Amino acid sequence: MTQDNMYACEDAVKFESYKPVIEAYTKDAVAQMQVFDPAFYDKCVAAIPSTQVLDTEPVDATSFWTLLSSQEQAIIGDLTIADLTQKQLSGELSAVAITRAYIKAAIVAQLTTNCVMQFMIPEALQRAQELDDYLEAHNKLVGPFHGVVISLKEHMNVKGKVTTASYVSYLDNIPKNEAVSITILHKFGAVFHARTAQPQGIMHLDTWNNITGRTRNPRSTRLSPGGSSGGESAMVAMRGSVIGVGSDIGGSIRAPAAFTDIFGIRPTTKRISLMNGLSSGKGQESIVAVQGPLARSIEELETYMRVYINEGQPWLYDPQCVPIQWREPKLPSKIRIGVLYDDNLVTPFPAITRGIKETVAKLSENSEFEFVNLNPKWFSEKEMVDIYTTNLRFYTCDGNKVQSEMWSPSGEPLLPLTKHYMNFGGGKELSIYDNKMMNAQRDALKVEMLQKYFADLDFILSPNYNGPSEIPGESLYWGYTSFWNMLDYPNVTFPVNVAHDVEKDAKIPELKQNEYEKMVWYKENGDIRYDPKSYIGGPVALQLTGKRFCDEDVVALTKKFVAALGVQRR
Amino acid sequence: MTQDNMYACEDAVKFESYKPVIEAYTKDAVAQMQVFDPAFYDKCVAAIPSTQVLDTEPVDATSFWTLLSSQEQAIIGDLTIADLTQKQLSGELSAVAITRAYIKAAIVAQLTTNCVMQFMIPEALQRAQELDDYLEAHNKLVGPFHGVVISLKEHMNVKGKVTTASYVSYLDNIPKNEAVSITILHKFGAVFHARTAQPQGIMHLDTWNNITGRTRNPRSTRLSPGGSSGGESAMVAMRGSVIGVGSDIGGSIRAPAAFTDIFGIRPTTKRISLMNGLSSGKGQESIVAVQGPLARSIEELETYMRVYINEGQPWLYDPQCVPIQWREPKLPSKIRIGVLYDDNLVTPFPAITRGIKETVAKLSENSEFEFVNLNPKWFSEKEMVDIYTTNLRFYTCDGNKVQSEMWSPSGEPLLPLTKHYMNFGGGKELSIYDNKMMNAQRDALKVEMLQKYFADLDFILSPNYNGPSEIPGESLYWGYTSFWNMLDYPNVTFPVNVAHDVEKDAKIPELKQNEYEKMVWYKENGDIRYDPKSYIGGPVALQLTGKRFCDEDVVALTKKFVAALGVQRR
Repeated sequence: MTQDNMYACEDAVKFESYKPVIEAYTKDAVAQMQVFDPAFYDKCVAAIPSTQVLDTEPVDATSFWTLLSSQEQAIIGDLTIADLTQKQLSGELSAVAITRAYIKAAIVAQLTTNCVMQFMIPEALQRAQELDDYLEAHNKLVGPFHGVVISLKEHMNVKGKVTTASYVSYLDNIPKNEAVSITILHKFGAVFHARTAQPQGIMHLDTWNNITGRTRNPRSTRLSPGGSSGGESAMVAMRGSVIGVGSDIGGSIRAPAAFTDIFGIRPTTKRISLMNGLSSGKGQESIVAVQGPLARSIEELETYMRVYINEGQPWLYDPQCVPIQWREPKLPSKIRIGVLYDDNLVTPFPAITRGIKETVAKLSENSEFEFVNLNPKWFSEKEMVDIYTTNLRFYTCDGNKVQSEMWSPSGEPLLPLTKHYMNFGGGKELSIYDNKMMNAQRDALKVEMLQKYFADLDFILSPNYNGPSEIPGESLYWGYTSFWNMLDYPNVTFPVNVAHDVEKDAKIPELKQNEYEKMVWYKENGDIRYDPKSYIGGPVALQLTGKRFCDEDVVALTKKFVAALGVQRR
Repeated sequence: MTQDNMYACEDAVKFESYKPVIEAYTKDAVAQMQVFDPAFYDKCVAAIPSTQVLDTEPVDATSFWTLLSSQEQAIIGDLTIADLTQKQLSGELSAVAITRAYIKAAIVAQLTTNCVMQFMIPEALQRAQELDDYLEAHNKLVGPFHGVVISLKEHMNVKGKVTTASYVSYLDNIPKNEAVSITILHKFGAVFHARTAQPQGIMHLDTWNNITGRTRNPRSTRLSPGGSSGGESAMVAMRGSVIGVGSDIGGSIRAPAAFTDIFGIRPTTKRISLMNGLSSGKGQESIVAVQGPLARSIEELETYMRVYINEGQPWLYDPQCVPIQWREPKLPSKIRIGVLYDDNLVTPFPAITRGIKETVAKLSENSEFEFVNLNPKWFSEKEMVDIYTTNLRFYTCDGNKVQSEMWSPSGEPLLPLTKHYMNFGGGKELSIYDNKMMNAQRDALKVEMLQKYFADLDFILSPNYNGPSEIPGESLYWGYTSFWNMLDYPNVTFPVNVAHDVEKDAKIPELKQNEYEKMVWYKENGDIRYDPKSYIGGPVALQLTGKRFCDEDVVALTKKFVAALGVQRR
């Protein structure tokens, strides 16, 4: 495919014919919200600012939790998975009551952040009633997620429900099978009430598509919630669900978790099943996507992983999964952590640099942790240009052929970040030979990571992204997260109680001169692009990385970190 | 690369200049044998028939074990890994005595089967002495393989030693690193005395290359020992080593093990490290190669796997390896085994059909086993043509570019089975898009295997190959083994005490009419190719397949099978 016809899948005329289909699809979400509780819906619409205001002002959407009753606020705010199940067992709470509270929170989330693609409110209420009936009849819970309300990234197949993965041409796609993870979570008693938005092609660190439009960041509605699991991050940060199930091939769990100040894990590949979902990734294995939870506390994230793996045993359903138990963590008595303040390619914005320094300073008070500055030992700027270019080329190595085939039937317009992604690494179609050589380069890096970096380090602490959240449409640099997808070392994203500060974070640091730095820091006319006022409300969150298949240890150290930092459940 | 210039890497003039290099390389093996024990060498040369006889007559090479003293014969013949280590601990045997006996057996193996590429006799003797010294000084073994003599497929890197993978152009390649498996085995006290032959490109089910020529089958020297680990199968079947380390991407452990009537395992991928070896496979991941042992008893094969994985922990060295322990097997009380008499694509030769029937009949006497004829439920002939064509296309999907680059510098002539392989699936260069679609087809098959076949079966029993060993240069059909490489379900090859019988196996069965059946069964002129006299001495061995990562269970059931069949250590 030549550069000239890279965007040939766009077709305004074809797209026109899809507009009524899109309208019918999106109307359903509104109808479900209205039908559920008309009075509540009207109250919300009256209280929540217009989309014009939400899109331009740094509105804190979490302030609208007060639209819920105090009892409902307590359910969504105070009760962990353990509390919810315990209180159902003891008879203090019903699954229906929990589900109703979460549906209300999800409605507030939707009206402020536009995070939902498809509601499943009637199904959730019916399921909750079944759970209550079961508990009453059998005097025991269905499973460890009995009555726990979980939101699902929409590209996961739900049997019998339109599943689009945000491709307009898939608005008539009704899968016959169900995502393995849904099967597992259902078995454990989970309630599913909402399927959340992902960006066009599921390949932005942002959430904007031609079906439901743009999703907003709960911490500041004019900012991006990250992506591609940005529907999930907005939903979970808005307390619209207990856990959100996302997926990540370049940062799609971690960027959204970081942008919205919650927890997320990109597990080592093949521990969690991705089977039975829709994406352009079928058959691509140079960089393997993962599925994983976004959560409001590290403990709940850990519970999810342990239950899903040890009791769910996804390998019984999905032959791609490896049968490795979620084991007890093993941390050394003195934990040695390399700190990557800057990836030597793109200098982070000041809030990130300040956030990582403040965090390391605070954690260093604990003698259990030993921090080492990893930057002097890290890959050089020149090496990083090469590594990142290879990283990007992987994503577009078929010349975007699969993606174009999926967009083409509807002719839907390509959004700016879609075009940005299509041009990754030049966007050219490569040969299988090139792909093999790139895989070999990747494998050599994997070995170098183990033998050079993890030889005397237990973990690596780094940013998730070059900034504290991002202006919609401007999440251009994937390197802080996609580097780890390429190498397949597991990461946890966690909040550190630091947020962007217009005054403290005003000074432009010394900058490098490579193409990626320029893309992030400069406008086309050569002026600095960074404006501290743009990032009001943007949180700083960090990324902790461990050895392959040592996800348990990464989670365990994150627990210690958030305890030491006093980070509360969100 | 067009069909026209597919063989453009051949260059007779360039190759001429490599002949002295080849000669110098091969002379070294002879020199090492002579220097080790000149009298023994002369005695062997006098006793063993000429290569002309070995190449044309069905000589049983194992009859030349008598060239060893009775004590040496006892060492190589009677003592398992457990016996060898125990007798060293008790002082009954030294590592040097064991090593000397095995070197002698390896010399007999080499002079009859031509299985060696490079001897490491001085290093082995020095290592054995070190082990004896260590035991004397510390009164304990270095590790579980103390004084156990192991042969290595030559493409595994040995630090500082020429490593060719049978590519003539690599006769000056001296690796700086060492195969991870060698590091692990060395740590456990193994002694390495020989590096064994593989075919050109490591992609024949036979063993023939332009450096050391052709390797013979110990059971009948005019037959092929299989390949690509045919140097290992010949060596191990000749009792020239306790264990042979081979590798398998399409049948390269199982075909040789079957052809020479010994045991072999193709483990699930990523349990054993392949790191630091030479092949054309770098960066190719549609069908992932594995390394695994060839052994003379199922117990020793099991010991190797358990020790290598649980004590060797290859994931500490190789980030591709998954940290899954070799666990205790879990077999149901009633074991349900699907029997695939014929893969519905290429009808096996009569000895195989008879062998599998006789074996199932004998094993059916044991009420623990329940056998089910899988053929009616298996993929249809039409489906199998499609599946196998995809399977083959994976091997050549870069248009043989990497291979050609590796052959090109020497211009070495392409052997018939190399050309056969280069034309797999048409031999055309495919696009990354095609490769992704094929990967998706493969993944769907993996799921089908789990959900349709293994839903009510615990194991599948099938042939390893369409015949009982093969005439050199005629191992054309890979499907019985390569099917499982594509799906990555683990297999064990094991002897069943059945051999080809000229009279019993004379009748031509009813044949199918697909292209692969024709290739195997018919000559170009339409006559039947199969001649029962060709296969004298060819053993029948079967292949047992289990669920992914259930290698332990496959080994455990094989143990039960060989016990029931009365199959002795080879």
